[in-house]
Amino acid sequence: MAEPPAQDLLLAAAFVSDAQYNRNIPFKTSPEAVRLYYLYNHWMMRTATYFFIFLNLSLAMFEEPAVYPLPFLVTSVLEVLCLLVFLGRLAHFATVTLHSVFWKDTKNICIMVAILLSLTDLAIYGVLRVYGVRSIRWSRIVRPIFLINFAESRQIRRAFRSIRNTLPEITYVFLLFMFSLLMFSLMALKLFGERNLQTAEGLPYFRNYLEIVFDLYVLVTTANSPDVMMPAFDFSSWYALFFIAFVIVNTYIFMSLFLAVVYNNYKKHLKNEIRKLAYMKRRKMIEAFNLLKEEEGEQLVVREARWKQLVKLVAPDISNSHRELLLRISDNEQKGFVDKKSFVQLADLLNIQVVTLKLRSHPLARWVPRVYGSAASRLLRGLVRHRAFVWTYDAIILINAIFIALDEETPYISYAEWVFLALYITEILLKVYTYEPRAFFGKTQFWNWFDTLIIFAALTATILNATLKSTTKYNSQQILDIVFILRVLRLIRIVDSIQRFRVIMNTLINIVPTMLTFGGLTLVVYCVFAIIGMELFHGKIQFFPADSNAPHALECGNPALKDSLFARGKYCKNNFNDFASSFIVLMELTVVNQWHVFANGFANVTVQPAKLYFIAFHIVMVIIIVNIFVSFILEAFFVEYSLEKSEVETAIEQKIQELGMGVQEDELQDEQLLDNMESDEHELEGEGGAKPQPKGLVFKIASKTPFPLLRRPFCVPCPHLTTL
Amino acid sequence: MAEPPAQDLLLAAAFVSDAQYNRNIPFKTSPEAVRLYYLYNHWMMRTATYFFIFLNLSLAMFEEPAVYPLPFLVTSVLEVLCLLVFLGRLAHFATVTLHSVFWKDTKNICIMVAILLSLTDLAIYGVLRVYGVRSIRWSRIVRPIFLINFAESRQIRRAFRSIRNTLPEITYVFLLFMFSLLMFSLMALKLFGERNLQTAEGLPYFRNYLEIVFDLYVLVTTANSPDVMMPAFDFSSWYALFFIAFVIVNTYIFMSLFLAVVYNNYKKHLKNEIRKLAYMKRRKMIEAFNLLKEEEGEQLVVREARWKQLVKLVAPDISNSHRELLLRISDNEQKGFVDKKSFVQLADLLNIQVVTLKLRSHPLARWVPRVYGSAASRLLRGLVRHRAFVWTYDAIILINAIFIALDEETPYISYAEWVFLALYITEILLKVYTYEPRAFFGKTQFWNWFDTLIIFAALTATILNATLKSTTKYNSQQILDIVFILRVLRLIRIVDSIQRFRVIMNTLINIVPTMLTFGGLTLVVYCVFAIIGMELFHGKIQFFPADSNAPHALECGNPALKDSLFARGKYCKNNFNDFASSFIVLMELTVVNQWHVFANGFANVTVQPAKLYFIAFHIVMVIIIVNIFVSFILEAFFVEYSLEKSEVETAIEQKIQELGMGVQEDELQDEQLLDNMESDEHELEGEGGAKPQPKGLVFKIASKTPFPLLRRPFCVPCPHLTTL
Repeated sequence: MAEPPAQDLLLAAAFVSDAQYNRNIPFKTSPEAVRLYYLYNHWMMRTATYFFIFLNLSLAMFEEPAVYPLPFLVTSVLEVLCLLVFLGRLAHFATVTLHSVFWKDTKNICIMVAILLSLTDLAIYGVLRVYGVRSIRWSRIVRPIFLINFAESRQIRRAFRSIRNTLPEITYVFLLFMFSLLMFSLMALKLFGERNLQTAEGLPYFRNYLEIVFDLYVLVTTANSPDVMMPAFDFSSWYALFFIAFVIVNTYIFMSLFLAVVYNNYKKHLKNEIRKLAYMKRRKMIEAFNLLKEEEGEQLVVREARWKQLVKLVAPDISNSHRELLLRISDNEQKGFVDKKSFVQLADLLNIQVVTLKLRSHPLARWVPRVYGSAASRLLRGLVRHRAFVWTYDAIILINAIFIALDEETPYISYAEWVFLALYITEILLKVYTYEPRAFFGKTQFWNWFDTLIIFAALTATILNATLKSTTKYNSQQILDIVFILRVLRLIRIVDSIQRFRVIMNTLINIVPTMLTFGGLTLVVYCVFAIIGMELFHGKIQFFPADSNAPHALECGNPALKDSLFARGKYCKNNFNDFASSFIVLMELTVVNQWHVFANGFANVTVQPAKLYFIAFHIVMVIIIVNIFVSFILEAFFVEYSLEKSEVETAIEQKIQELGMGVQEDELQDEQLLDNMESDEHELEGEGGAKPQPKGLVFKIASKTPFPLLRRPFCVPCPHLTTL
Repeated sequence: MAEPPAQDLLLAAAFVSDAQYNRNIPFKTSPEAVRLYYLYNHWMMRTATYFFIFLNLSLAMFEEPAVYPLPFLVTSVLEVLCLLVFLGRLAHFATVTLHSVFWKDTKNICIMVAILLSLTDLAIYGVLRVYGVRSIRWSRIVRPIFLINFAESRQIRRAFRSIRNTLPEITYVFLLFMFSLLMFSLMALKLFGERNLQTAEGLPYFRNYLEIVFDLYVLVTTANSPDVMMPAFDFSSWYALFFIAFVIVNTYIFMSLFLAVVYNNYKKHLKNEIRKLAYMKRRKMIEAFNLLKEEEGEQLVVREARWKQLVKLVAPDISNSHRELLLRISDNEQKGFVDKKSFVQLADLLNIQVVTLKLRSHPLARWVPRVYGSAASRLLRGLVRHRAFVWTYDAIILINAIFIALDEETPYISYAEWVFLALYITEILLKVYTYEPRAFFGKTQFWNWFDTLIIFAALTATILNATLKSTTKYNSQQILDIVFILRVLRLIRIVDSIQRFRVIMNTLINIVPTMLTFGGLTLVVYCVFAIIGMELFHGKIQFFPADSNAPHALECGNPALKDSLFARGKYCKNNFNDFASSFIVLMELTVVNQWHVFANGFANVTVQPAKLYFIAFHIVMVIIIVNIFVSFILEAFFVEYSLEKSEVETAIEQKIQELGMGVQEDELQDEQLLDNMESDEHELEGEGGAKPQPKGLVFKIASKTPFPLLRRPFCVPCPHLTTL
């Protein structure tokens, strides 16, 4: 058989890459389409798409009502530009996928409809504007669709699918909960309605059924506890029992039940998704295998040379030795070819972060071996490696914390800041002198990066501030604030010195990517509600600075708010007058406390049914999204805490151990990672060798260290569930 | 071999009963001790113990500061009585257990020390009182120990053990959380400390480090959001970012992490407990087997007759046919004996609720067969069994709800109440006429019981009220309130008509026993905190009725509260002046909202460190106990929703099916259970027969119906985990 044409290899590499990143795009197999498909998946194209999606979303900041007003012409040109980019991206996608598939996919239809709606709305609004008629830019509400529906946002779509699947069950529990609420309200009406009681604000208490329902709904969220109970409780202590029963049934039991239903469905849905992904991955890998297979005796296999070419195409950035390791795992008996079963594993193998630790000597040892190897240098490096070095710096951090807490104005203390900065910089320099710099700033060395960035940022900001102060006698508030924050952030380092804290912190850092998906989800919900909120409440509530003498400054410029809790709480700056303010209000509503004050305030300045907006937000955001978030954290945490490894990870580890290139995990956890790398000091050329060097190279699976999840394309719980 | 003496059988029955109820008491095997052991486990003895435990706890209601004051002599005599009962119970326990075990058990030592402390304290307090010196009744704090440490409160002890096991891990997360809190506080001090900002109440804003820490701790609980942010936000919108970051890190991430850690440990701990219980159960069963075994060929077995005697002793209340069914399962091949393997299963078999449905004819059919069998009677019964009958009553309930919501004063409507009562009573009578009464009021017919009780209670209360009104022209408020509540509760029935709601309701009812354990846990924590709270804050805050003209009536009788949020919120009745009030305050603190107002209020009237009391309560109650409660509900819910059955349940079901006495579960769920029982109408003597009648008797496993869990001794998740 002849060498397969490069085209086959390219196509196979596209399949493997799809499998690796869990993409499920049925692309055409013509040479042209495959080349376009590579372009489509290029990181620059994807970054550009994200850039335009966020530009499109952030247009709300510049359109009226604007945080930073821009002329209508500018924002509309930008919007058209974004829409054209989306159209282009979609057209590009259409050229690489099969036609039948493209037109059946609701995602694509959604995007096209959204583009069409946006353009129509923009045109109508523009024309009306020319004639001086103001209309509503209702199409702004469809903008989050672009964030959800582009093929890149798989995670967000999955989260939405998970929500959609949970909805029926949530609905039943919600109806039962509403029934319970209505029943309790009826009881409250009968028990308290005719007592002529008054609230602390002197308003009639529990007189109107609908108001009781709202008040008790607020009590479920605990936001008006215990105020809502006090009038009845003052009248008779026995009435407290009614409220206790209410809180136990609705707040504790029903709210836990919501979490239980959401979590249960989330787990179930996750299992299904993983099963589907595993199936899809296998199918793609088999297609790749079929393209590259050759006969070897009875078997169909992929030969070593072609396998290597493929891996080079799919993962150009992994080291030679890493590739060699993967080959040794795939071709376990060194027969010079990879069979189907091992080949299918490749996508998973590529997904596992293997850190190649090169036991390279320090560059200084190569450049000035005499100096670096001298007794003084050895002593110094010994000191830096000693535990006491860490303790000394922990003590310095603690002293620093005390200095920060003390007053800034004493000149003594502001000099101390320079001393501390100098000490921290010395520490970093000493460490770089002692440890190999490339290892010190390795991909998984999160804390080293963190330290260095914080300290250099603090240095820059402090110098900038000092310069400004000495030249203009004026402290820039922004810079000073940043300096303060950086100074305090520096103290976080002390956490890293304590083993138990480090474990918890790593767990937290590991679930960050998962949380970003929820950032996206929240962004979508916030955008929709912010745009509706601005249409409903824009301009109804104004904020005036404390010294303003505008009419009704204390009532947020609206006499309807006189004596309201909203005005008394000085909440005037919480309004829907622009996109940023709306986001902050929605954030406060997500935190829940005092949301009824907001609801009542905004209902007072518009109409009473406006409360429905706030109830709807509470149901969507708190009952559904926050519960999904909590389920997410629970599941992610359990997976991080369970020490199970997936099959593939175990296979790699075995091979690493077999080849004698392993590093004991316990050693790595107890000691600093860097200590290991210094265990022997002879030189090696490292990079070049095709065969892995048993000495001088060590591998280690990085899954329990901070960063790999950023790469893992779906979600944290995967390794746990791959055996399904 | 001769008949074994009754002593062996008694001893074996004690072992089996221990295994069945998961008791782990190593009792002596002498005839006297076994008899005493039976007495010790008698339900009357246990009820009496609980009665005295709760009497002892409720003494706090009558001792100073009292809700209902009783003379010191009375309460102290009652306390001494309780302590003597406890001592007696302990002495009884000492006679049945082995000496070496008794003195090694911390539970017993705890009780003895607690009795000793209580008596000493009582004596000192009494003597001092005679001499007119007031001292603190500090020993009251040890009273909950009796609730925890008596052998009966296994569940509560398990919950405490679970908490104890979780503590180390929680502590680390808590320290990290505190570190984050301190860092953010430091940042807040630097960012806002020198801006001279003021809160909405005109107080200095974020000036003092400790106050910032407290304020931000309160923000974690969301109780002072968004108030704590507003001054900084009014100053510059950018500062909102600080608070958003704070809330995301501390409220969302750390609080979810607490739940995750608690839940994770809870699950782990649960598995261990179940494993231990299973081991203990097996050991007890083997001991029982060894007592009763006889040789049968090669095997050691228990013969049928003796097996039956044993089961009669252990479970005297199960029916003959049920016992026969168990025998058929244990002696599968009807060989006349039970082997070791099957014998060991007995404890589990007894724990599974098998409902024996007897297809008995209606008593009226026996007494007046002519009338009952007449065409009119048949038609009537047909109507009652028709679905339309249920729909009609649902409609009546809805109309009733509207009438309740309308005003009471119109005479028309108050007459309607009598009509509705009559309708409901008619419904119950018709149903009892149609269905067999003993089946209608069967153990598992929760809703029938509920309906009947509610309606007869309402009837009694309404008649009582009408009588009072017509004779004394005076509505008793208490009776009227009860009438109102009963009327509304009647409406709950409508939930039972909708299949989906019924499933959720059954799940909820099933986890009630689990929640009772948490009632006990909460009671212990509340008791301890209430007693401390009364010592700290007793009499500091007074409640005056609205029309009082006492000095400082508006400031709760304490000038230190002038202008405080506490006085402005009219919270004066929330005080620690007696046991009941303290409980209500603690309940409000558990709900969390406004707890900082309480903390500040009570700190103002005493000393600032008093806030620590409130922080401690928050940590213990909200961070630990409520999270355990949520874990409990989550786990219980998952188990109820997973349809898995334990091995033993499956075995029983198989046997029921084999014997042709099964009832299809789907039928049972879709139709009313009662409909099945009427499927054929011929008479049977039912009770007497030793062999189960293939017709006329049906069995059904009752684990998915409301009540069995009350019997299941450990907790809901057991069936799920028995395979471990």
